[in-house]
Amino acid sequence: MAVGETVPLGIDAVPGLRLGVASAGIKREGRKDLVVFELAENNTLAAVFTRNAFAAAPVLVAKEHLRTTENSRQAIRYLLVNTGNANAGTGAPGIAAAEKICRCLAELTGVSNHQVLPYSTGVIGESLPVEKILAALPDAISSLNDNGWRDAAEAILTTDTRPKGATRKVEVAGSRITISGIAKGAGMIRPDMATMLAYIACDACVEEKALQGILESAVAESFNRITIDGDTSTNDGVVLVATGAAGVGPSTAHDFDNLAQAVTEVCTELAQAIVRDGEGATKFVTVRVVEGASDDECLSAAYAVAESPLVKTALFASDPNWGRILAAVGRAGIPELDIAGVTLWLGDVLVAENGALAPHYREQAGLDAITPEEITLTIALGRGDCEQTVWTTDLSHDYIRINAEYRT
Amino acid sequence: MAVGETVPLGIDAVPGLRLGVASAGIKREGRKDLVVFELAENNTLAAVFTRNAFAAAPVLVAKEHLRTTENSRQAIRYLLVNTGNANAGTGAPGIAAAEKICRCLAELTGVSNHQVLPYSTGVIGESLPVEKILAALPDAISSLNDNGWRDAAEAILTTDTRPKGATRKVEVAGSRITISGIAKGAGMIRPDMATMLAYIACDACVEEKALQGILESAVAESFNRITIDGDTSTNDGVVLVATGAAGVGPSTAHDFDNLAQAVTEVCTELAQAIVRDGEGATKFVTVRVVEGASDDECLSAAYAVAESPLVKTALFASDPNWGRILAAVGRAGIPELDIAGVTLWLGDVLVAENGALAPHYREQAGLDAITPEEITLTIALGRGDCEQTVWTTDLSHDYIRINAEYRT
Repeated sequence: MAVGETVPLGIDAVPGLRLGVASAGIKREGRKDLVVFELAENNTLAAVFTRNAFAAAPVLVAKEHLRTTENSRQAIRYLLVNTGNANAGTGAPGIAAAEKICRCLAELTGVSNHQVLPYSTGVIGESLPVEKILAALPDAISSLNDNGWRDAAEAILTTDTRPKGATRKVEVAGSRITISGIAKGAGMIRPDMATMLAYIACDACVEEKALQGILESAVAESFNRITIDGDTSTNDGVVLVATGAAGVGPSTAHDFDNLAQAVTEVCTELAQAIVRDGEGATKFVTVRVVEGASDDECLSAAYAVAESPLVKTALFASDPNWGRILAAVGRAGIPELDIAGVTLWLGDVLVAENGALAPHYREQAGLDAITPEEITLTIALGRGDCEQTVWTTDLSHDYIRINAEYRT
Repeated sequence: MAVGETVPLGIDAVPGLRLGVASAGIKREGRKDLVVFELAENNTLAAVFTRNAFAAAPVLVAKEHLRTTENSRQAIRYLLVNTGNANAGTGAPGIAAAEKICRCLAELTGVSNHQVLPYSTGVIGESLPVEKILAALPDAISSLNDNGWRDAAEAILTTDTRPKGATRKVEVAGSRITISGIAKGAGMIRPDMATMLAYIACDACVEEKALQGILESAVAESFNRITIDGDTSTNDGVVLVATGAAGVGPSTAHDFDNLAQAVTEVCTELAQAIVRDGEGATKFVTVRVVEGASDDECLSAAYAVAESPLVKTALFASDPNWGRILAAVGRAGIPELDIAGVTLWLGDVLVAENGALAPHYREQAGLDAITPEEITLTIALGRGDCEQTVWTTDLSHDYIRINAEYRT
């Protein structure tokens, strides 16, 4: 189940980046489960990772490789992604396994092993099947091509029901730059300064520090504003590559803004696609909190609502149970919140004000507002001018089924 | 569904306190849904309430009545509890409704209206059916008797599947004191300095400030250590009454400790009964976090695990998915947590250490440990000597069913 129709993915090629996929048979024979990204020689790369203290081995190895290449002024040349196994909770042998597959890819392609970043997603706590991955690497390499985005979007999925991609074109320094990205993720989704897995690339030339800034601000407004179940993953990672193949890059503030805006749009489209495909999701819910005294309190209220099991089950039932929404706002830890100043809308329908049901509210209007697949809850705190938005799903029988059955 | 067998409730009478019940037909004709507690003339009373900013009308009125009686040095003489309607999110008319039913009970019994404390539980956002309650008050009063605890425990339930009560006897100043209590609650359970509804009484003489201290420390170790769905209610309240009917009270430190210990035991038994009867619960889970640098970080880790939808669905599936447990610990916000120092046991089975599976762990042992209805997860943080325990449930299909259907 997923919210909204499945549309064919059109992901434009990004000059300077090739993608290859292969079947390593990690979890199931024959399924494509391995992706190699090949980056142009002079690319720059920005990355963010999970802040879960229980970070997976590939996260630790990728961070180490980024430090090494920064010190030696080398570029990252390959990303190696497997699905079916997260290589998390695997201790020192897990680190060695991640290092080994990087080294093998480096030898096959003639680069240094720290020019490869590893990414894994799937079951936590099982040993990475290194030999299977090594055996499949030549296939992945031989299939490298400019138009591999769609296949790669399929190959990185786990419990996702559909691939996720986005593309934008933007004018930079008089040239037309392409920005494309793919992402995966459907559960264990409450990113924190990073997210599930997402790979975004553009063909502009962008200096590394500027690229990192563009990525971080884009992630803050997109991947870091979604929650499916409040559980932050051990393997989250987002990468933004600038291949430089266009031969031009942003030099004016206007160019930078254009590029950053387009990257944010790609990230937001991908982040929302993850929510639409959330485990068991039957609704795509925008929780918008306005009139806050600070962004932080808007986010506290928005997450309290978005992660409340009682709100989420009411959304699943298309029940305009506004009391549960206000009760979640009430326990969000906002200092001296006066509930009499809080106003709630379901879609365009004014439901509650002054701490009680709005006088003209009618249950049928609430039902009509909460029944569609895509709905917006707007909560005005009546305390200031700040606002923040979070995207989430409902909580359904299928979420329980998927997560009670995932390992069995 | 509920965890463990239903045992007949034996709740001893507390001299100086009588209980009456009646059917007001608030939600369903014929069901007992109204309880009156009558307290001895010279009783003392301690109370704690929800800290949800969206507090219900009866909470606001009860607090106001406590202030008034404190200033006028009068005792609270009656508690008036209804189920089926929470009188929350009802604004100024809700306050007036709560005041009106207090005033009516006060007139019928010859006390001042602020000597009555109102408590409501049930659906949020619907008007309290005042006339129905007023019509049933005479029945409740005429049924007042010493042995009404069991009937009252039934009459305060909402989605609970069974009544909850506990009794202790304790020696105080050479006399045998009785402590009895009842509680309700099965969903919207994450108490915060208060809880769902619980009423505890003893027949000792205890000065009010001391009584409040005994209640607060008992609640901190019992009701404030349980979570079913992380949602703090709008109507939570706990009351501890000392009727004084025994004619003696604690005067030595030893007496105070004995009494406080017995009150804590009653509160803990009631709190655990609430968890066992948690909405859709198939498991009673003790999450024990040890070796923390502070109590706060132990609680952060314990609640992150206890409220993780992924951990809870794995518990429902009897899946020893230790990776999800460590991932929850990893995102609990503990500063500079070294996951390599964390150790995890399911029951007595050592599962993970040094950030990875323990070498001698076998899946079958994990399965055996996680299959029983009552299980303990022990997490050692390896950072200090503090420890904290939280009790919770799994997350099942029935939780979704109950909460998606509750209002319809």
